[in-house]
Amino acid sequence: MKVPPHVGNFSASDTIFAPATPEGVSAVAVMRLSGPAAFDITEKIFKPKGSRPLKSGTFPKVIYGEIRDGEEVLDEALVLAFRGPRSYTGEDVVEFQCHGSPYVMRRLGQILLEKGARTAEPGEFTRRAFFHGRLSLDQAEAVMDLIAAETQAQQRMAMYQMRGGYAAQLRSLRQELVDLMALVELELDFSEEDVEFASRSKLERLLEDLMALAEKLRRSFASGQALRQGVPVAIVGAPNAGKSTLLNALLQDDRALVSDVAGTTRDTVTDHLYIGGVKFQLVDTAGLRDTSDHIEAMGIERSFKALEQARIILWVFAPDALLSADLSEKIRKTAAVTQATVLRVWNKSDVTPPPDSNHFLAVSARLGKGVDGVREALIQAVGVATSALAETLANQRHYEALGLALEAAARAQNALKENWSGELLAFELREVARHVGAITGEVVTDEVLGAIFSRFCIGK
Amino acid sequence: MKVPPHVGNFSASDTIFAPATPEGVSAVAVMRLSGPAAFDITEKIFKPKGSRPLKSGTFPKVIYGEIRDGEEVLDEALVLAFRGPRSYTGEDVVEFQCHGSPYVMRRLGQILLEKGARTAEPGEFTRRAFFHGRLSLDQAEAVMDLIAAETQAQQRMAMYQMRGGYAAQLRSLRQELVDLMALVELELDFSEEDVEFASRSKLERLLEDLMALAEKLRRSFASGQALRQGVPVAIVGAPNAGKSTLLNALLQDDRALVSDVAGTTRDTVTDHLYIGGVKFQLVDTAGLRDTSDHIEAMGIERSFKALEQARIILWVFAPDALLSADLSEKIRKTAAVTQATVLRVWNKSDVTPPPDSNHFLAVSARLGKGVDGVREALIQAVGVATSALAETLANQRHYEALGLALEAAARAQNALKENWSGELLAFELREVARHVGAITGEVVTDEVLGAIFSRFCIGK
Repeated sequence: MKVPPHVGNFSASDTIFAPATPEGVSAVAVMRLSGPAAFDITEKIFKPKGSRPLKSGTFPKVIYGEIRDGEEVLDEALVLAFRGPRSYTGEDVVEFQCHGSPYVMRRLGQILLEKGARTAEPGEFTRRAFFHGRLSLDQAEAVMDLIAAETQAQQRMAMYQMRGGYAAQLRSLRQELVDLMALVELELDFSEEDVEFASRSKLERLLEDLMALAEKLRRSFASGQALRQGVPVAIVGAPNAGKSTLLNALLQDDRALVSDVAGTTRDTVTDHLYIGGVKFQLVDTAGLRDTSDHIEAMGIERSFKALEQARIILWVFAPDALLSADLSEKIRKTAAVTQATVLRVWNKSDVTPPPDSNHFLAVSARLGKGVDGVREALIQAVGVATSALAETLANQRHYEALGLALEAAARAQNALKENWSGELLAFELREVARHVGAITGEVVTDEVLGAIFSRFCIGK
Repeated sequence: MKVPPHVGNFSASDTIFAPATPEGVSAVAVMRLSGPAAFDITEKIFKPKGSRPLKSGTFPKVIYGEIRDGEEVLDEALVLAFRGPRSYTGEDVVEFQCHGSPYVMRRLGQILLEKGARTAEPGEFTRRAFFHGRLSLDQAEAVMDLIAAETQAQQRMAMYQMRGGYAAQLRSLRQELVDLMALVELELDFSEEDVEFASRSKLERLLEDLMALAEKLRRSFASGQALRQGVPVAIVGAPNAGKSTLLNALLQDDRALVSDVAGTTRDTVTDHLYIGGVKFQLVDTAGLRDTSDHIEAMGIERSFKALEQARIILWVFAPDALLSADLSEKIRKTAAVTQATVLRVWNKSDVTPPPDSNHFLAVSARLGKGVDGVREALIQAVGVATSALAETLANQRHYEALGLALEAAARAQNALKENWSGELLAFELREVARHVGAITGEVVTDEVLGAIFSRFCIGK
């Protein structure tokens, strides 16, 4: 990958450092140093114990030795030396693996400052990696997602994206588009001769392929976002259906207040549940009924809000706690609008079995019976998304860029159909290429880069 | 160093692992694996990206590649490979430098378990290093002290000890003793012939040298402990002398409640102050006076307790707040007993200068004047200790072992003087050697080892 010309005012002439491990008393702490003076600075403060030279020989290498603080030994440490461009940042990189002492790390930072390095900004190492073409922008974003991963689903999505993911497909389609666009632009020089270098049918097919991919990715966004942030699940039903008991049974915990009194849950209670590597955000809601109690009515209003935001609705029925036709209709309508999956749970089945076992998951939340079935149903409800994670879009920025690319592509299609001037067609094609290129960072503004990398942690 | 025979029931046949960095979202996280199967396990789960082989070639080495979770890629990581005995533990060691994702580390731990490694106990890596003769016991303890270091003084003491420190002297004297002891024991075989293989004068001199060193080290213990834990400083004086104002001025903070009302401070207020790499524990105390107020009297009792525990006494005078002769005498007597350094501070010197500027540090705590002078005086008061840190004893266990060694050495001296039987002399010499050997770990019980290493952090 070549250096994007738009990031030319980024300076990599400084040598930067930052701790790469969390602060704390621990076995090991790593300080990372990157830039043109990384090796020179290391030579000033590090005395190898063996005969392995720092600057010559095979890279990467490990050297054991002493970090010197003037005449004194600050620590005995390992040095990992990487010669650019074969390093994380693409520059010369030295990593000091010290004893995990906060004091040693603090002092080492001071010494590096004294020797002319400066502290790195958040994400600056990865920004340099991008600048030197070691990573594309979507890969850099995936690094951040991987670090923040809490579940297998999140780790998988991040790893696919880090290793190319859908960006590879987008990049190749974009390249074809750029090639054809060049021919369209060439035609402009011959505008009086009515030549056609770029095959219009090829261009049409290409735009169709690109739009199909963009639409598919945008459709997967909701699941991708849900997997990244936790799939929102609303537990709804009539008062006293046993929603809170079910929540507790799922969590195997006494998270929500439970009693025999209908309407015990007034505020919504939220907790996380991990099943099969997927994170769920369970929201227990106030029981739905027509009520004149002002506070209860406010709780019910919140229940409907949770319902609207849910990707999965756990609708809890119980023989002695069924909803009015009106409220049932309201749940069905909401699910139809939001396209949420509805799982019907028949609670208290130890007392009265469900009227139709195909239609209901039979559960006794109190006895913990059937709860595993609910867990399985939950994971199946997101199954489609997890099976094709490579093509799942979870990044808001990519989602927006694809939206703009789709609009421009539709205008380009129209230009082709209506046989508009080459100038107008070329303009729209450039717009498509620009928005697709923003995802991988082939076309990107400093402002966007700043926004992305400032969310990184220090040392990455 | 040879393997101490006393730790023979320690088993190093398992391969162990643990995270070596604190948990948290960060740039880098390190998982450490050590033991006979470290390389085999790594080959099962790690696929190098280049052609660098894991098991052959020069060590230590760095390899970039993929950590595999079955068919899937868990992470792209660096592997540091050390071939025993040239590693931290003396065994084959592999360090996985992963992305700093708690999920990745958790999953990597599960994979290592599946492949036959087990989680390491606290300090088990260092315990193995000791077992394989890579570290002596006092050095292992220094590793722990270094990791916990908060100040330059603590780091220096730990580093000196890690690099030999006083243990080297003790070890060499002990070796001489052991050699002479062998000759004394040889004499026992010829007990009827009245031979003397071991020079008695040599033995006497050796015992004297050993005792002199042990006594010097034991004398330095109080400073060593103070430097390790923070030098206790008591701020004392009459009510309204401005003790709390001085504390706040030293801390550059509003830590203690200050008012014009004499007796505002009732409980003792403690805070830490770092000057020139030394940690001080400042204790602000209730003003001293004869009082009938029950609560104030209790506060004054605590003031005297703080006074007794102080290594430095900051005695605050003010023209309008002087102590009675009785109370002044009490402070002087306490200082004489505890050998604490007394620094006399004349506060409110902007109003009334001190009667004798050689005797008092002139300060206006309220205006912040002269406070730097107090800081300098504090650091000078511990100066003797910091200049000879190598010979400063800060370890309670070593202090006790030297005490026992001294007692046995005195008995051995007596045996020599009184010309006791060879058996009795040899017995006492063995006692001396045993207690000195406990410091470096040449003679040590499993119980002691367990107690030491259980205080380590996981992964070290």
